[in-house]
Amino acid sequence: MSTIPAYVAHSATDPLTPGTIERRNVGPHDVRIDIQWAGICHSDIHTVRGDWGPQPYPLTVGHEIAGVVVDVGGSVTRHKVGDRVGVGCMVNSCGSCVNCEAGDEQYCVKGMVGTYGATDVDGTITQGGYATEIVVTEKFVLSIPDAIPFEKAAPLLCAGITTYSPLRHWGAGPGKQVAVVGLGGLGHMAVKFAVAMGAEVTVISRTLSKKADGLRLGASHYDQTSDPDMFSRLAGSFDLIINTVSAPFDVDAFLGLLAVNGALVNVGAPAEPLSVRAGNLIGGRRTFAGSMIGGIAQTQEMLDYCAEQGIAPEVEVVSADQINDAWDRVLTSDVRYRFVIDTSTLVS
Amino acid sequence: MSTIPAYVAHSATDPLTPGTIERRNVGPHDVRIDIQWAGICHSDIHTVRGDWGPQPYPLTVGHEIAGVVVDVGGSVTRHKVGDRVGVGCMVNSCGSCVNCEAGDEQYCVKGMVGTYGATDVDGTITQGGYATEIVVTEKFVLSIPDAIPFEKAAPLLCAGITTYSPLRHWGAGPGKQVAVVGLGGLGHMAVKFAVAMGAEVTVISRTLSKKADGLRLGASHYDQTSDPDMFSRLAGSFDLIINTVSAPFDVDAFLGLLAVNGALVNVGAPAEPLSVRAGNLIGGRRTFAGSMIGGIAQTQEMLDYCAEQGIAPEVEVVSADQINDAWDRVLTSDVRYRFVIDTSTLVS
Repeated sequence: MSTIPAYVAHSATDPLTPGTIERRNVGPHDVRIDIQWAGICHSDIHTVRGDWGPQPYPLTVGHEIAGVVVDVGGSVTRHKVGDRVGVGCMVNSCGSCVNCEAGDEQYCVKGMVGTYGATDVDGTITQGGYATEIVVTEKFVLSIPDAIPFEKAAPLLCAGITTYSPLRHWGAGPGKQVAVVGLGGLGHMAVKFAVAMGAEVTVISRTLSKKADGLRLGASHYDQTSDPDMFSRLAGSFDLIINTVSAPFDVDAFLGLLAVNGALVNVGAPAEPLSVRAGNLIGGRRTFAGSMIGGIAQTQEMLDYCAEQGIAPEVEVVSADQINDAWDRVLTSDVRYRFVIDTSTLVS
Repeated sequence: MSTIPAYVAHSATDPLTPGTIERRNVGPHDVRIDIQWAGICHSDIHTVRGDWGPQPYPLTVGHEIAGVVVDVGGSVTRHKVGDRVGVGCMVNSCGSCVNCEAGDEQYCVKGMVGTYGATDVDGTITQGGYATEIVVTEKFVLSIPDAIPFEKAAPLLCAGITTYSPLRHWGAGPGKQVAVVGLGGLGHMAVKFAVAMGAEVTVISRTLSKKADGLRLGASHYDQTSDPDMFSRLAGSFDLIINTVSAPFDVDAFLGLLAVNGALVNVGAPAEPLSVRAGNLIGGRRTFAGSMIGGIAQTQEMLDYCAEQGIAPEVEVVSADQINDAWDRVLTSDVRYRFVIDTSTLVS
């Protein structure tokens, strides 16, 4: 075991404070990573604040991790010391269920092991990336191509794969009309990916305040839900709608925006039940679906695609002592488009 | 115009009575059909009873029609006098929108013309199949293969295509686990089709009262929603669930029965809004979708498939004077599995 610096939550309400966490020794299949960058995801805040249930405090969150390999176990073959690597939302899974075998470790029948706040296979509670080091079994460690700026790599491990995966699954590409609901950390990646894949992209946001950004990112159109005519004007327009907003919304209204065979895919998970009229699905063979991150192989595919296409998130680098302020700004959507912690500032 | 015998609804509440309706003269592209068999669909009752909105009485319903061609217009090429033909839930569409051009006439952007109670392209109100004749533009007239017993062909035009289409769309076949919810007119066809396509089929009904039938139709398993353990025991089991029940149901519970990438497809349309938790979609890339009949080309494909595979509905033939009683029995699910009217009894 080693004790390393981290930013730690001690309750659902207190600010995070500097502290320490324990990391296990490097086992035969483990990789020890010197964390250099850690993205701030809204999920970090939801988790610590108890929005998704009680948590095992003290807890260090962070599941968008980029760093350098500093040690590997004797059986490790995928990574070596000095490699640029990343860790996302999961650090293990059973490896033998039908979903793990299909490469969908995120849907492991026994439950994937989340990067923080989960019970690991050794019975310890996992601790996340707002820290200087992490030890992860090699299968769940991704290779970060050199072409991706290092500080921009971290958000790809959650915001990136969460949007890339459904765009691939539902066939975003040339000739397809794709709408992205919400232009935040996830939404801005969804726009970049969908544009790169060749789709015609529309951003649908509450207001037009980020319209210039949306168009700069490659969207062809930018509409606002506060426009009362929007839902009738764009009725039947989209083959795929990726909804990145984790708030209750009018599902029926958005289903009305879909073309025949269209899919409305939630990657945000509002806690409240949503109301859906079956007739809105039946009248156009429409789909309401959801998607959660992506498997390890697809995450690597996404990173390689980013390198090839020159895709990276837009980030604002913060130091450790700015984390609590950054969280406040995430809650008011005051970030374009992802905060990334320079974890070297955790050591002082 | 010609005046022909029919069974007619005069209000939302009165029993149907013998009467007459008008049919247009045969135009260049029209086919006049001597109706011999007309299936009774629950939709007929919903429509007449005003469950789906006010209706243009007097109205003759029926959208499962089988008969023989007795006249064709000068430009008709698809059918000739003496052919066995069928008409289903639609008798026209715009023919030029993106959906019509894709063969999805049922999702015509301008709205398909329903077989009864709809405004036809000539401005008249369409009248359905509880009648001795119908005149329909040739494109919406299907050929009934000789191998299909004539009186069993009619229900294929609605109950058949409504279940065949989503089974094809969502890939029912070998290696797939398919559940059919409800064993009525639609459900029993869904079982037959899914079994023929090679899937392993489970019927999920309220009780086990029709279990022997379900197994005889080819289902491998039969479960009841009144079993409190059913939803946990079968969690994650199905690739595809076809829900044929037009009543409110616990969507979240049924989503829990789906495997990763599974789809819950409603072909019944409960009027009430349904409650869905997005987390149940996201946690398994699951789909909640709907499907409505099928296009004309696919309907012909379905009829040819039935002939090839020896598939036909189980029917109970009734005479015209039994229609009102048959409706009462449909409302109590007392039919195995479709009533078909011998329309020769309309003439007395």
